[in-house]
Amino acid sequence: MTSKKLVNSVAGCADDALAGLVACNPNLQLLQGHRVALRSDLDSLKGRVALLSGGGSGHEPAHAGFIGKGMLTGVIAGAVFTSPAVGSILAAIRAVAQAGTVGTLLIVKNYTGDRLNFGLAREQARAEGIPVEMVVIGDDSAFTVLKKAGRRGLCGTVLIHKVAGALAEAGVGLEEITNRVSVVAKAMGTLGVSLASCSVPGSKPTFELSADEVELGLGIHGEAGVRRIKMATADKIVAIMLDHMTNSSNVSHVPVQSGSSVVLMVNNLGGLSFLELGIIADAAVRSLEGRGVKIARALVGTFMSALEMPGISLTLLLVDEPLLKLIDADTTASAWPNMAKVSVTGRTWIRAAPTEPLEAPDSTATGGTDSKQMVLVLERVCTTLLGLEEHLNALDRAAGDGDCGTTHSRAARAIQGWLKEGQPPASPAQLLSKLSLLLLEKMGGSSGALYGLFLTAAAQPLKAKTDLPAWSAAMDAGLEAMQKYGKAAPGDRTMLDSLWAAGQELQAWKSPGANLFQILTKAVKSAEAAAEATRNMEAGAGRASYISSARLDQPDPGAVAAAAILRAILEALQGQGA
Amino acid sequence: MTSKKLVNSVAGCADDALAGLVACNPNLQLLQGHRVALRSDLDSLKGRVALLSGGGSGHEPAHAGFIGKGMLTGVIAGAVFTSPAVGSILAAIRAVAQAGTVGTLLIVKNYTGDRLNFGLAREQARAEGIPVEMVVIGDDSAFTVLKKAGRRGLCGTVLIHKVAGALAEAGVGLEEITNRVSVVAKAMGTLGVSLASCSVPGSKPTFELSADEVELGLGIHGEAGVRRIKMATADKIVAIMLDHMTNSSNVSHVPVQSGSSVVLMVNNLGGLSFLELGIIADAAVRSLEGRGVKIARALVGTFMSALEMPGISLTLLLVDEPLLKLIDADTTASAWPNMAKVSVTGRTWIRAAPTEPLEAPDSTATGGTDSKQMVLVLERVCTTLLGLEEHLNALDRAAGDGDCGTTHSRAARAIQGWLKEGQPPASPAQLLSKLSLLLLEKMGGSSGALYGLFLTAAAQPLKAKTDLPAWSAAMDAGLEAMQKYGKAAPGDRTMLDSLWAAGQELQAWKSPGANLFQILTKAVKSAEAAAEATRNMEAGAGRASYISSARLDQPDPGAVAAAAILRAILEALQGQGA
Repeated sequence: MTSKKLVNSVAGCADDALAGLVACNPNLQLLQGHRVALRSDLDSLKGRVALLSGGGSGHEPAHAGFIGKGMLTGVIAGAVFTSPAVGSILAAIRAVAQAGTVGTLLIVKNYTGDRLNFGLAREQARAEGIPVEMVVIGDDSAFTVLKKAGRRGLCGTVLIHKVAGALAEAGVGLEEITNRVSVVAKAMGTLGVSLASCSVPGSKPTFELSADEVELGLGIHGEAGVRRIKMATADKIVAIMLDHMTNSSNVSHVPVQSGSSVVLMVNNLGGLSFLELGIIADAAVRSLEGRGVKIARALVGTFMSALEMPGISLTLLLVDEPLLKLIDADTTASAWPNMAKVSVTGRTWIRAAPTEPLEAPDSTATGGTDSKQMVLVLERVCTTLLGLEEHLNALDRAAGDGDCGTTHSRAARAIQGWLKEGQPPASPAQLLSKLSLLLLEKMGGSSGALYGLFLTAAAQPLKAKTDLPAWSAAMDAGLEAMQKYGKAAPGDRTMLDSLWAAGQELQAWKSPGANLFQILTKAVKSAEAAAEATRNMEAGAGRASYISSARLDQPDPGAVAAAAILRAILEALQGQGA
Repeated sequence: MTSKKLVNSVAGCADDALAGLVACNPNLQLLQGHRVALRSDLDSLKGRVALLSGGGSGHEPAHAGFIGKGMLTGVIAGAVFTSPAVGSILAAIRAVAQAGTVGTLLIVKNYTGDRLNFGLAREQARAEGIPVEMVVIGDDSAFTVLKKAGRRGLCGTVLIHKVAGALAEAGVGLEEITNRVSVVAKAMGTLGVSLASCSVPGSKPTFELSADEVELGLGIHGEAGVRRIKMATADKIVAIMLDHMTNSSNVSHVPVQSGSSVVLMVNNLGGLSFLELGIIADAAVRSLEGRGVKIARALVGTFMSALEMPGISLTLLLVDEPLLKLIDADTTASAWPNMAKVSVTGRTWIRAAPTEPLEAPDSTATGGTDSKQMVLVLERVCTTLLGLEEHLNALDRAAGDGDCGTTHSRAARAIQGWLKEGQPPASPAQLLSKLSLLLLEKMGGSSGALYGLFLTAAAQPLKAKTDLPAWSAAMDAGLEAMQKYGKAAPGDRTMLDSLWAAGQELQAWKSPGANLFQILTKAVKSAEAAAEATRNMEAGAGRASYISSARLDQPDPGAVAAAAILRAILEALQGQGA
């Protein structure tokens, strides 16, 4: 079976992909008749050196993503994993020359096809009198024994685009740029690792790996690597990679050692999640710093991909201050990340936690009798909920996941445990706030968050006063917060139905001379009626909203629990007050 | 089987990933004890509004990649696909307040858990006297019928980060920012499509798709979408998406129509190749422009992922000039792309091809007899190569892919066809240049490129003179180019072995009074001996270098062909000259 791909045609992939990048980036233009992208502002480059790169497609955002002021002048793209046509390379060289540039540097990854085709175009352009130089980049650190073909060009090539781009932008001449980047190119190494292969459009994956293997030292064309290693933790795999890359008995190693200063690139080969990319970046920074290496800059992202290969490559470039200035220089290239011009190693990267506000002494704290009454109310609420556990779970099994009673019992036990630890705050506002935190932490789920929200909001009006109008306002504030963040409205078959019915009755507390028990009793009855009425409601929010209403013929357990809590409060207060 | 992931532990994924992003980005700091990232320059924000966002992990680079000057002040990250803890959200709010900001806007994606937890932290912070507002973003355009839960928050949230960030950076107050972004958030829509699911670390993929299906209208947590459609071309799938998103009978549509001006985001959901992303971007631009929509800006990349999901989302935001200014405003956020401040629609995105240089009249064109002689030489070379086809293929079968004879015959037939079209150029330099282009186009493979290189380089010394020293210099130039770009050296068992041996003998042409035939005869014999000697060589370059030398006991077919060409030239010249 060939791979599943979002394309128009296998033959048109490279053309369409380049057209898309150019279409979306007004800094780029296509060269008529060729698979070539160039800076739109080419005519502003008179007297400067032009930088052209490219190669097979399938490595996006390389290379077109690195076109821009301060990086490449243009790129020539081949078919997927295939060298570009000589005629197109020559056309690109002619186009930049005719725009008034004074010479062209070709930045070529070390693959036979690319060397030959860029080389040929170079010879032809020189025969036409255009000054053209060529650097061949081989940053691969996979091969421990020298191959005649040399090191492959990998993600480090992007750093050469950056360095050459900064030099060209600064007006440096062709020969000096060529010499400078040739030196830089020798001071870097790249190594890849992948969890699986990739597949060229229209083809099958290029190799197979078992579930417990990863491929080490692969290139960027889906070719297999130098060896397979057992699946391990990110830390372990990064350590193996860095050992391999920096081992001086490996002819292709990069001579990074304790005291070295480097630019680190953590490159997504295409299909790895960015979550994993971050984990690898973390492992790489810790491992390098553990080896005494100073990380001057770190780039994390997708720079040089191998289609959708789920893997990464690490690149290390030895740097000094003048080279860092070139890495830091501004560029408009779309795929070069915004990067702080600050050393990664050595800066403070943890900020102290904020101070927690001191609890202000509360003028409403009446203490003594009231506090004792609060404890009795809470105890009554807890025993009520514990007694309802199985009933609530049974109701919930018809509409949710059957844990409503368990959740409320967990809350009850948490409150009981807390009451045992000592006297609760005497101030109602502080009491509700503490309860809020307790439920958030211990009750869990949406119910915990919703009760937490209710209590936090309800606490606010009780800070200044604790008379009946203030308690009615507390109920209003709690209900408002619950509706606002929970997105349930009365009638949606949730706990809100009971609480909202009660809240309506409690408005009467706001009238002068209102009677505590008379009104609270009405509120509890109204809440119980509302809970019962949920039996006939369609679920509009919460988990039960995913169930067809035909299957819902029991009252909502959350509404039942809320009404039961209100009755427990009433009864506890009456037991005291009577 | 659970998914294969590059992680240290399932439980530590979110912590490690955030630590990696912060470790590599000196613009960020972690808040001690919390999964919170904040701007390092927090203390420079005195008197400004702080912007906090976040949510579950697994959406990287969202949200930490959008922290920076001109975007977010900080983010709070939950476990993978899980809302962040209220305590951490509150700690982040306190930290930015204690740094001297004058208020905080929470930018929250519309999911119950996020609404509740951010809402709770907001209520708690307000209870502490910190001004905190909250906007809930729902840009999902998947659902055609209104759900009580509302539209999900997707990639469009990143645009809200940008707009709010630009306003905060400009010193706008909390209330105005809240109002402005609430309006902007209503003017956008996002729709996703994917080729497969993703899998949370430690778990299996969340849904299955067959090879000919794609999932339309999915969210960013691996949940299934609104419907499955048959696999189709990128153009067709993009058209279906845009139809769905902009259809006014869809309650969650974005009212984009002919004449609208939009910002387009083409977002990689994680595991799609960037090649395909470019193809989709191309399709989206063409389709929108075909509908009369003006694309003001286009962003292509990974902004809001769903782990490694191989899919994309498209986001459309209706814009006017003031809003575009906010999108264009500078930011240091690492994951916001460099973007030209130029309209995508309406600009010239094709540059005319360069002019080809006129062929200068060549002073060395001697015409007449010489040109006729050239034709005879080429004809003899062609019949020789055609006669060797099967022999060369047989030699190649032992060491390569058995097509060496076929390749050379293809070249011979191409030359024969070209000679039938008319008289070849009379100038040797022009003749070799033309032959170079012909072989490049028609011979193919590395051999075509190498002969093309040889002839292009060899043509240069023949521009000024065509005497024997010039022909020797031409051979030198050809050999040099072949070695330089092909990376083969004499002794590597390639075509170069024969040519190099001949070239050594032809040095004698540079001496005054050298004899054409005497020296050329020696050169041909030397080439033939070198070809025969490849029988005992290890392959150091070319395809045969991958074969163990023990299996190579025949001469190299490329070297045999090159020697045969030289003998054909000698014999043709002798037939004429005798």
